[in-house]
Amino acid sequence: MQTEDLLKQIAFIKEIDKLKYIQRKTKLFNSDRNENDAEHSWHLALMSLVLVQYSNAPVDILKVLKMVLIHDIVEIDAGDTFLYDTKKNHVNTEEEKKAAERIFGLLPQAQAEEFIAIWEEFEMAETAEAKFARSMDRLEPILQNASNRGGTWREFNVGFDVVYEKTQVIENGSTSIWDFTEALLNKSVEEGILRK
Amino acid sequence: MQTEDLLKQIAFIKEIDKLKYIQRKTKLFNSDRNENDAEHSWHLALMSLVLVQYSNAPVDILKVLKMVLIHDIVEIDAGDTFLYDTKKNHVNTEEEKKAAERIFGLLPQAQAEEFIAIWEEFEMAETAEAKFARSMDRLEPILQNASNRGGTWREFNVGFDVVYEKTQVIENGSTSIWDFTEALLNKSVEEGILRK
Repeated sequence: MQTEDLLKQIAFIKEIDKLKYIQRKTKLFNSDRNENDAEHSWHLALMSLVLVQYSNAPVDILKVLKMVLIHDIVEIDAGDTFLYDTKKNHVNTEEEKKAAERIFGLLPQAQAEEFIAIWEEFEMAETAEAKFARSMDRLEPILQNASNRGGTWREFNVGFDVVYEKTQVIENGSTSIWDFTEALLNKSVEEGILRK
Repeated sequence: MQTEDLLKQIAFIKEIDKLKYIQRKTKLFNSDRNENDAEHSWHLALMSLVLVQYSNAPVDILKVLKMVLIHDIVEIDAGDTFLYDTKKNHVNTEEEKKAAERIFGLLPQAQAEEFIAIWEEFEMAETAEAKFARSMDRLEPILQNASNRGGTWREFNVGFDVVYEKTQVIENGSTSIWDFTEALLNKSVEEGILRK
C-alpha cells in the first residue's frame, strides 16, 4: 500500500503548513516582528545541532531533532501557550493530546505512533533527549528578549524571580548553558531590561 | 575554551535568525503569503523525516536533516535564487561560497568545517543524502503551486516543459516520489493551472 501511505503523508505535509500561522508572543532577534512556530522549531533544530556538546548526558541527536521539529505541531489545534500565562496549565493538556492524535493521525499508523510517542516523551521531560530539547525551547526566547530590550519580560511585566523559576529547567538539560543563561539574566537586570 | 566556543555558537544562533526575513517566491499552501527560508527549511526537515522510506538508496537521515536545515543559510548574504530565474546560475556561485565561509565561520572551527562540508555536499548533489534532500527541496513548491491554482507557474508564466525539466531531478532522490510528482504535474495541466 505504498501509494496509499504516500497520500496520507502528503496530507500530513499539507496540514502542518498551518504551523507557520501560529504566532508566538516572543519577537525575532532585534525585532518587533512576532516569531511563528515553524520558524521557532527550525531555530531550535539548529540550536540543538550546534549546542549538543553541552548536554549533561549523552543524547541521540536525531531524536532531539525530531522532538524540537514536531514539539509545537499540536498548537495548530490547541494554540500557542505563553510561558508566563498564569491561567493555563502547561503540562500536556487534554486539548493537546487530542491535537496530537488528529494531526499525527493523518500519517500511516506506524509513523503516527512514533511521532505521538516522541511528542509525549518531550512533554514528560524525563529522558536526556527531552531534557536537552526543552532546554533549547527555554533558551531561545531568553536570547530574543535580551536582544529586544526586555521583550516579553517588559511587555507582560514579568520579573526576575518568575523568569528564573520558569527557565531554571535549562539546568536539567545543560548546566553549562544554564550558567550562561543565569549570567545573561543577571546582566539583563543590571541593564534595567528585567526588573528584580 | 568551552566558554569561548559557546559565545561563538550563540553569535551564530543570533545571526541565522536573519533567514526568517529571506522571502521565497512561492506561497504557503492555499495562501497568498510568501514563505520564508526558515519556514521552508523546517518544512523540508519534516518532509524528509516522513518520506525517507521512498529514497532510492539508503540514507543517513541525520545527515539529510542537517542538509535541509542549513541548505539556505547562505541566502542570508546571497539572497534567494528563484528556480525559474533564467539569468542566474544556480550552481554554487562564488557569492554563496563566501556567504558559507562568513556565516558558518562564526562557529568554532570544527563545527564550521562540518557545516560547510555538508552544505557543499548538498550543492554537489552526488551522494544519496544530497539527492534525497534535493528532491524534498523540489517537491515542496510543486505541492504549494498545485494548492495555489498554479502559484509561481502562473505568476511567472512558466510552462510544463520547463517545470518538468527543472523538477525531474526528484527522480534522482526517489522514483516513487517522482512518479507522484509527474502525475501531479499532468493533473495540473488538465486543470488548466499549468500551461502545456
